[in-house]
Amino acid sequence: MLDYEIFNAGDVVLQSGLTYRNARLAYKTYGTLDAAKSNIILYPTSYGAQHYDLEWAIAPGKALDPTRYFIVIVNKFGNGLSSSPSNTPPPFDRARWPQFTMTDNVRVQQRLLHDVFGIERIKLVYGFSMGAQQAFHWGALFPDRVERIAAICGSAKTSPHNFVFLEGVKSALTADPAWQDGWFATSPMRGFQAMGRVYAGWGLSQAFYREEEWRKLGFSSLEDFLVGSWEANFRRRDANDLLAMLWTWQHADISANELYHGDLAKALGAISADALVMPCETDLYFTVEDNRREVALMPHAELRPIPSIWGHRAGNPAQNPTDAKFLDEAVGELLAR
Amino acid sequence: MLDYEIFNAGDVVLQSGLTYRNARLAYKTYGTLDAAKSNIILYPTSYGAQHYDLEWAIAPGKALDPTRYFIVIVNKFGNGLSSSPSNTPPPFDRARWPQFTMTDNVRVQQRLLHDVFGIERIKLVYGFSMGAQQAFHWGALFPDRVERIAAICGSAKTSPHNFVFLEGVKSALTADPAWQDGWFATSPMRGFQAMGRVYAGWGLSQAFYREEEWRKLGFSSLEDFLVGSWEANFRRRDANDLLAMLWTWQHADISANELYHGDLAKALGAISADALVMPCETDLYFTVEDNRREVALMPHAELRPIPSIWGHRAGNPAQNPTDAKFLDEAVGELLAR
Repeated sequence: MLDYEIFNAGDVVLQSGLTYRNARLAYKTYGTLDAAKSNIILYPTSYGAQHYDLEWAIAPGKALDPTRYFIVIVNKFGNGLSSSPSNTPPPFDRARWPQFTMTDNVRVQQRLLHDVFGIERIKLVYGFSMGAQQAFHWGALFPDRVERIAAICGSAKTSPHNFVFLEGVKSALTADPAWQDGWFATSPMRGFQAMGRVYAGWGLSQAFYREEEWRKLGFSSLEDFLVGSWEANFRRRDANDLLAMLWTWQHADISANELYHGDLAKALGAISADALVMPCETDLYFTVEDNRREVALMPHAELRPIPSIWGHRAGNPAQNPTDAKFLDEAVGELLAR
Repeated sequence: MLDYEIFNAGDVVLQSGLTYRNARLAYKTYGTLDAAKSNIILYPTSYGAQHYDLEWAIAPGKALDPTRYFIVIVNKFGNGLSSSPSNTPPPFDRARWPQFTMTDNVRVQQRLLHDVFGIERIKLVYGFSMGAQQAFHWGALFPDRVERIAAICGSAKTSPHNFVFLEGVKSALTADPAWQDGWFATSPMRGFQAMGRVYAGWGLSQAFYREEEWRKLGFSSLEDFLVGSWEANFRRRDANDLLAMLWTWQHADISANELYHGDLAKALGAISADALVMPCETDLYFTVEDNRREVALMPHAELRPIPSIWGHRAGNPAQNPTDAKFLDEAVGELLAR
């Protein structure tokens, strides 16, 4: 029996012009929706993640407190639970996946909240990494529906360097002989290994490795960490699903739609939500500087970098109590405003 | 006709215990050795580079002035000109390359200078990246023979994060179906592409891409830069040669020898040369912080970061006049001491 729900979104006309039929959005809720429908926290997913990977942050006494809030983790398209290359019948299966933008994702999420729960306003959109990018999209696409956003280690638009980093990840996976233009002959084991090793250098900081912080995660050597954490992380997933999510990430841009026509400054200026933007000081691809420039164009945003050597992973610190406390206190403060 | 010379080093007993027979070291000289043999600048090569890629920095009026100095660019083992997987007969050819450490390289370089030119002291060892690592090795292995070192964007020991970055590069190349454990069936075109794209994110800074500095290099788009600069750069080389140099880089450590037995502090402390250590402020793998820690343990070293958004490439700025001027002035000052 599934531990989550499915929203049948029907036929979704994508930004590309293609229609994805019988779209399914997987989600899980925590806590109880109050009578006024005023206690909603939306928690979209990060790259490669499913709600299982994120729900550690939800607990009584924490900022994401299910005794106070109705929290919805929504799995993004491509993550293997919502409609994805790996679970779609022809003609949009596997290599033929039609690509969902982040705007496509967020618009279906809005329908889920409206159609299933009658929700018109969200107290907080909380997201890490690609989840943070979805939070920015919510703020720009639905300014009247979002009271607060907490964007952790993510940006409103994917920066050019971030795009290049992802080109490397993608190229490593697709260099595998099994790739065959996406019609994988077998599971690309060598590609998963390469992808994991490429990602490992980016996902944490130089100082993380210098200080051997991986020991705190229970690994016995650097090689043990590379295999046990990074290779393992990607081998859990379908290769085309990973490529689908990567495409969505590379093309994330809150202004790439008919509301803003590519005018990023205008889109940022339209985010009326009270926004807490929290890059990590040592994140190598979602940098503080990119967020600083975005925050400067947002009317109600605060930049509050996470002081950590855990790089990008500081934003989803299931196993790092210090960073988890920093985030939890900041988000608690945001919710109390 | 070759534009460079070959030093036949004979049989070289490597640190690994294997003997590489008939080792050939390719080098090129610029300028004239003075009678006192007191005007030598040694310029070892960086990753993937041959002397052709480095000699732009040598010119009358520059710090590396061939009208004043006798400059020797020595091609490191594995670079395709000196003994390398691609030009070695069985049994040490291609996949069976026996691996040269940086210490192995520097010891043969010392024999070249001594046996061919009768050189006992070097005025300056100048190096970029892996070349800088060789400069550190010279300083630690031959303290009495080296008066100055200029170490640009390189470290005395490859840091753990730097090692991980290289794991990604290596994994991308070897994910190619042509790899076959090093007995490449064909040239690994997909692997070169992947390697180039992985490297592209590391070789320059986030700000370089944000500001589209690649336009200054004559590229018409980001994709044009990725293909025209990065893919092209590796496709010039033999895949096993690239893997051989990568291994040398990953294992660079001035203390990994019988003089220092892994005691890095002792090895750094033994570098009596007047040392100018110049990381780039935005280098993503040879970081300022790693150099700062090394300089603190060296008796006569100065840390002088290059203020540039060109990341690692700031250290070999053939096409960046600002960074070139900064380096040239610094090295000129070092030579004048």
